[in-house]
Amino acid sequence: MADRDTDLALDLPALARGGDVRGLRAALDPLDVPAVVDELERVDALTRAVAFRALPKGTALAVFEDLDPALQGELLQELREEAVRDIVAGLDPDDRAGLLDELPAGVTARLLSGLTADERRMTTDLLGYPPESAGRRMTPQVVALPAGLTVGSALAHVRRHGEDAETIYTLPVVGAGRHVEGVVSLRRLFVTDDDVPVADVLSDPVVVRADTDQEVAARVVRDHGLVAVPVVDAEDRLLGVFTVDDAMRVLEHEEDEDTARAGGSEPLRKPYLATSVLGLVRSRILWLLVLIAAATLTVSVLDAFEDTLDEVVALALFVPLLIGTAGNTGAQAATTVVRATAVGDVRFRDLPRVVGREAVTGLLLGTGLSLIGAVPASLVAGPEIALVLALALVVVCTLATTAGAFTPMVAKRVGLDPAVVSAPFITTFVDATGLVVYFLIARAVLGL
Amino acid sequence: MADRDTDLALDLPALARGGDVRGLRAALDPLDVPAVVDELERVDALTRAVAFRALPKGTALAVFEDLDPALQGELLQELREEAVRDIVAGLDPDDRAGLLDELPAGVTARLLSGLTADERRMTTDLLGYPPESAGRRMTPQVVALPAGLTVGSALAHVRRHGEDAETIYTLPVVGAGRHVEGVVSLRRLFVTDDDVPVADVLSDPVVVRADTDQEVAARVVRDHGLVAVPVVDAEDRLLGVFTVDDAMRVLEHEEDEDTARAGGSEPLRKPYLATSVLGLVRSRILWLLVLIAAATLTVSVLDAFEDTLDEVVALALFVPLLIGTAGNTGAQAATTVVRATAVGDVRFRDLPRVVGREAVTGLLLGTGLSLIGAVPASLVAGPEIALVLALALVVVCTLATTAGAFTPMVAKRVGLDPAVVSAPFITTFVDATGLVVYFLIARAVLGL
Repeated sequence: MADRDTDLALDLPALARGGDVRGLRAALDPLDVPAVVDELERVDALTRAVAFRALPKGTALAVFEDLDPALQGELLQELREEAVRDIVAGLDPDDRAGLLDELPAGVTARLLSGLTADERRMTTDLLGYPPESAGRRMTPQVVALPAGLTVGSALAHVRRHGEDAETIYTLPVVGAGRHVEGVVSLRRLFVTDDDVPVADVLSDPVVVRADTDQEVAARVVRDHGLVAVPVVDAEDRLLGVFTVDDAMRVLEHEEDEDTARAGGSEPLRKPYLATSVLGLVRSRILWLLVLIAAATLTVSVLDAFEDTLDEVVALALFVPLLIGTAGNTGAQAATTVVRATAVGDVRFRDLPRVVGREAVTGLLLGTGLSLIGAVPASLVAGPEIALVLALALVVVCTLATTAGAFTPMVAKRVGLDPAVVSAPFITTFVDATGLVVYFLIARAVLGL
Repeated sequence: MADRDTDLALDLPALARGGDVRGLRAALDPLDVPAVVDELERVDALTRAVAFRALPKGTALAVFEDLDPALQGELLQELREEAVRDIVAGLDPDDRAGLLDELPAGVTARLLSGLTADERRMTTDLLGYPPESAGRRMTPQVVALPAGLTVGSALAHVRRHGEDAETIYTLPVVGAGRHVEGVVSLRRLFVTDDDVPVADVLSDPVVVRADTDQEVAARVVRDHGLVAVPVVDAEDRLLGVFTVDDAMRVLEHEEDEDTARAGGSEPLRKPYLATSVLGLVRSRILWLLVLIAAATLTVSVLDAFEDTLDEVVALALFVPLLIGTAGNTGAQAATTVVRATAVGDVRFRDLPRVVGREAVTGLLLGTGLSLIGAVPASLVAGPEIALVLALALVVVCTLATTAGAFTPMVAKRVGLDPAVVSAPFITTFVDATGLVVYFLIARAVLGL
């Protein structure tokens, strides 16, 4: 696994261009499903379609299921109608709902019409929940135990009805109207004697509502160490289950988003190598424009202080260093606070505490840097400018960490993604503020 | 769950200071285990110890298991010897090994001596694997099926031996010398008739070696959608299993690390609010010093071009905007490539392709920004300086994306964490290079 990097590269595009189906099959055959997925996500759309068609039928469905949803949609459009119907019918209802989300409405309707009535109903039910909700991600194919069984009869029930369920390891116990009364794991049933009532080994149910955000549901699964969590409606009636593999995918997806935004770009909708260069440009240009517009503030600040700059050109020497350091300090604080907010370590009510801690941290960092830098700066630029720089660093670092803590928390409170207003945003903000501080201190100290 | 933010804050510190054990118990009693963990990770060490002692015994062990490992270590030092022994004996061997890692060697030895011979052997076995390996994280308590059973006898075997196992959902089938011959899920056995040989429903085993990095093992679990993966030695003999809940924790931990480093700081060893302000300063100061040392390059560059600057002070106005934009462009590229490398979308052999794509992306971004900014810049600073700025933007953006792609990939190749050399590092590097480019272009265009 870890050694894949040193394998010979497969030249799928060359094989696909040559129409060499046997060669493609031979190249992909030794790989397991995740490895095939990996290769397909690294090539262009046409190669992907040709290579996919060369896969044996059983493997093809498994590969399709694991493919990035955006690529699933693209791929379907390259396949023949018949192959598409087979794939769509073979998917689990939750995966199918995820796929149909990616397709134009006309295609969705045509594909739905090819399903059995039962399959169609399950799929459209899922599509009725809000995007990115637990309901959209759950599987309705769950084994529910009727209340009042013994362990022996419950195990027999699971064995009879388990074939189609996505998981049988988490078993909700339901009473009248599918009201969830508790949850028992298959494991618990398995190590308990047959004649014990299920009610005696029931756990309090940890459940999520269908309209819960998928990320929140995923964190419930992770924090409770669950294999699956039942999904219920507003009256606590069982609708389906949200499984740990879905939870892991959701968390990875959210992490993709947070990481991209922390770096000042929009998340890519597809794996990196499957994204075109224009796709990369599109994901970044808007943020760059916003940031460059904000950066014009720095031009105005420098313009306003041009007299000061004219008199002491040496002040200009330290501008990039000062604002760079301020930006880095702000980015550190923003990244830390965004992350702490994302994982739930910090909530809005902690705002004063967090801002206070970060302000003190910034003050200490600024003071530390000033003390360490004082001697070298004096040697380069003389004691007066070194003093200006030292004072400015203390103030600017404190401002930067405070802004870095405050902004993402407030953003989250008003419903924005805190990652959006993080590092690059803070950096640009402190650039302008830092310059004002620097020149004001310079005027005061140098008596300009 | 999602509404926790609006709950009234629990004032655990006040209750703890007042020694109000009954109040603490009443405050914590309505919360489930993850919520208690959450509260305990938000308070100081003393409050945590007092509140922990107020928990009922059964809850206490479950809470302890889920607590951040660094806090587990701290907490043990606040508890009485007897309570500590109970907790340590109650943990699963893998959790215990993780905890003992956090403690001073003397404490570890004393705690180990309090265990039964069997428990002690399992724990020290785990401690023998390298830190952050799958072996260190696995549980040795696994139900292995002897080869040659029928489904019925296999189910009976699991039922007899499943009590102590951490999971019974993934069942390795072992031949002579515990050599892993295949894996079968409990679910598969459960929906198959009793008289079918297990060999007929066996899957090819997906396994990881004990010395595999824990992050790689966690990605195997996620990519294959597994509940657990068997861990084997170099001869494919079964040692234990690595479960999905461990995989989720490992991935979150790695994400913490990557995020912190992307923001230019070291990862915190504890949850945010449980980290002291000095801890925050420590996690950041070293990186700031490295970056500020690198930023002195910008001072040298400006110093070298001081004549140019003296002649055309207007050039100084655009310095922060130019290097800010270059830094942002570089940060975007670095963040995207670090992430693509981390999730395995991109490998070292893709280096030329990735660098090529990013160079073109940078060229397009720089050109786009120049075209959009040309008119406003001419109005502010005249056509000549606007031309300098436009040309510099194109070159600098291309340099920034290229460096942003190249550096993390090469860092990973030589065994460094790619996240370390990401955004702030790239930003600082392009600051200096960008200034050189800017002044060289200025000299050429303005004929200085």
